Amino acid sequence: MTAETVNIGLLGCGIVGGAFARLVEARADDIAARTGLRLRVSRVAVRSTSRHRDVGLAPEVFTHDAAAVVTDPDVDLVVELIGGIEPARHLILEAIKGGKPIVTANKELLANVGPELYGAADAAGVDLLFEAAVAGAIPLMRPLRESLAGERITRVLGIVNGTTNYILSQMTEHGASYADALAEAQSLGYAERDPTADVEGFDAGAKAAILATVAFGQSVCAGDVYHEGISGVTATDIAFADRLGYRIKLVAVAEQLHGDRVAVRVHPAMIPLEHPLASVGGSFNAVFIEGAAAGQLMFYGRGAGGDPTASAVLGDVIDAAVNLRKGTHASLGPLQPARIEPIDELESAYYLHLEVADRPGVLASVADIFGRRAVSIRSMEQEGLGDEARCIFITHEAREADVQATIEDLRRLDAVRNVVGVLRVVGA
Amino acid sequence: MTAETVNIGLLGCGIVGGAFARLVEARADDIAARTGLRLRVSRVAVRSTSRHRDVGLAPEVFTHDAAAVVTDPDVDLVVELIGGIEPARHLILEAIKGGKPIVTANKELLANVGPELYGAADAAGVDLLFEAAVAGAIPLMRPLRESLAGERITRVLGIVNGTTNYILSQMTEHGASYADALAEAQSLGYAERDPTADVEGFDAGAKAAILATVAFGQSVCAGDVYHEGISGVTATDIAFADRLGYRIKLVAVAEQLHGDRVAVRVHPAMIPLEHPLASVGGSFNAVFIEGAAAGQLMFYGRGAGGDPTASAVLGDVIDAAVNLRKGTHASLGPLQPARIEPIDELESAYYLHLEVADRPGVLASVADIFGRRAVSIRSMEQEGLGDEARCIFITHEAREADVQATIEDLRRLDAVRNVVGVLRVVGA
Repeated sequence: MTAETVNIGLLGCGIVGGAFARLVEARADDIAARTGLRLRVSRVAVRSTSRHRDVGLAPEVFTHDAAAVVTDPDVDLVVELIGGIEPARHLILEAIKGGKPIVTANKELLANVGPELYGAADAAGVDLLFEAAVAGAIPLMRPLRESLAGERITRVLGIVNGTTNYILSQMTEHGASYADALAEAQSLGYAERDPTADVEGFDAGAKAAILATVAFGQSVCAGDVYHEGISGVTATDIAFADRLGYRIKLVAVAEQLHGDRVAVRVHPAMIPLEHPLASVGGSFNAVFIEGAAAGQLMFYGRGAGGDPTASAVLGDVIDAAVNLRKGTHASLGPLQPARIEPIDELESAYYLHLEVADRPGVLASVADIFGRRAVSIRSMEQEGLGDEARCIFITHEAREADVQATIEDLRRLDAVRNVVGVLRVVGA
Repeated sequence: MTAETVNIGLLGCGIVGGAFARLVEARADDIAARTGLRLRVSRVAVRSTSRHRDVGLAPEVFTHDAAAVVTDPDVDLVVELIGGIEPARHLILEAIKGGKPIVTANKELLANVGPELYGAADAAGVDLLFEAAVAGAIPLMRPLRESLAGERITRVLGIVNGTTNYILSQMTEHGASYADALAEAQSLGYAERDPTADVEGFDAGAKAAILATVAFGQSVCAGDVYHEGISGVTATDIAFADRLGYRIKLVAVAEQLHGDRVAVRVHPAMIPLEHPLASVGGSFNAVFIEGAAAGQLMFYGRGAGGDPTASAVLGDVIDAAVNLRKGTHASLGPLQPARIEPIDELESAYYLHLEVADRPGVLASVADIFGRRAVSIRSMEQEGLGDEARCIFITHEAREADVQATIEDLRRLDAVRNVVGVLRVVGA
């Protein structure tokens, strides 16, 4: 059987694009044997055409004109790896108009204008696949869309940003400060020179929006996601978490609440050591899923890097190529905008670390504030520090607005010298 | 849009079948909204027709005649949950002949006559899906077949039997003996009265064969799998493993070796504590996959139980129903029989626990035996026990035949009183 050639137009040839081009070359024979389709990167749009030296493609394959790649009649399928919203959005809409399947790893694009693109792709009957956009190499989008299509998913809990997981793991394992761990991550190339997108939770927020959209079948955009970063997490928080049997992780949480409401948030959280997410170390990603029938599931692997991301892109490309030959395509189904529950209404357990004056009656007045705000205390530890005492509270689940009001009241209390740490407890 | 009805013929209505029928009923509206297809269990073949009381289906849906369900012109799709090889094989071949997609959870069937069935389904252009056959609720078959279609998978390491994982976890956490932990598992319904299939590795062996077939695209049958069970694992082994930084797990290992050879085996193994599989406790399953580009991946979840297994079956049913409407089907591709590497040729690191006479020269003669068999020692610990000494060796990777010969020689050595424990070390 002679394999039918599928010509791929590649937009962007950076670390992931280069790895993808090499992987297609390396795997083409095996893929042809399995599927009868011979994949070939036939056009590549790049900013600098010197790229071809790295990826083993002929110089004439490269162009600066991304639009020409998309509209090239010989290009069967488009892989978008340029990132950002424009011109990626426009190029993808052009590809859809031309009836060409698209594979993208662009989380920013999908978290902002995903529903427009999913709708256009579905209307035109072409694939728009994006396994690599969330948690890199980990097969997650296809299991959520297909394997768990019959499952009522109630919660998704993910470690979806490798940079912050690396920083928090270094702080946990070596007692490093946040600043030192960040500097180390930067020197190793795990963190950008401007680390804001990672450490303040924007990157994880975009991924949380995509996860929630696919898991719940309702569209959630980046702006719907509440987020807090890890820059406020201290070595003291890490040490106390460890003593209490927790790890601190930056988590993306997407929940299906009663009344068909959805809550999506990103923040640092204390996770019990016995929870499978607690042992996800270094720059690894993992996504923990709770389903009504399936129970607890977890998917673990590399969230970033050239080869792992390219592997996920290639899986999608094979799927789209097979579908193209069969004249079929995958669909997310009709997506209605999700009804987002405001953060103030959410419930969570909390860890609170206070420095208080060590004198009679202080604990009573602190406990009184919790009580008046209807925040119930699950456990409390106190230790003396000269004329001060350190109090560590773990609360039961309480409404966010009530916890925030409690913290305000505590800060105003004369005997409370400092609210040292405040963290949500997740997965207990 | 009015949803098109898809009638499901269900063969077998035990714990999984009953859970499946209830799950279809509970999820039908949501699935119809997402896919435009209304699933309905229209015929059920059972041994005892009293089953209908539990699952909320009308009494007339039930029959003793499984063949009549398969050939019923109103049945669009067949779910096989009766287990065993016959009559399941014959019924599935009948369904394929009738152009009906099949979903099965039958590992014994697939591990023994899978290639015959995959070939027949592919030739007839119908789906034969079996997500639930390995690791219950965990999406694994579809990620391997589709998401990782472009990936060169080098190794699959799985904890795929919940019963043995429960027993080993109890031994680890509570210092229980094998016999006590097994008795507890039996009293809780986690182990059968005759536990042979689980504890001797037959169940895990069947799953290993299916995993290897899908991961490597070459057919591997149950008879190709080397297996050892856990009945020889002692509390002493568990305690030493813990002291050395390992957990003992029953693992299924499938490897793609050089020269396109494949090795598939099931045995208890010591896994380093920092390996993600080490913390998979209780009756949970997990499968760890190493790919050339994707790197390390792990999938974790419930390996058995009515609802989790039914969830996996339902995911396949939705997939098959959507494919049926589109006139398409999934395929494993052409499968050649794998070239199986004999166990004697495999390489593994080993843990060896010896009781020896505590007198001068003994260690030298023991070390000499390792040396003559070309088994290199990575670490060694000795402690005195009165007139005896306990020696714990961890070897470097060595050829199985050489390690077995070393053990034979050691047993023959006068100074060696007892070879207390021998375990492979995996994942280091």
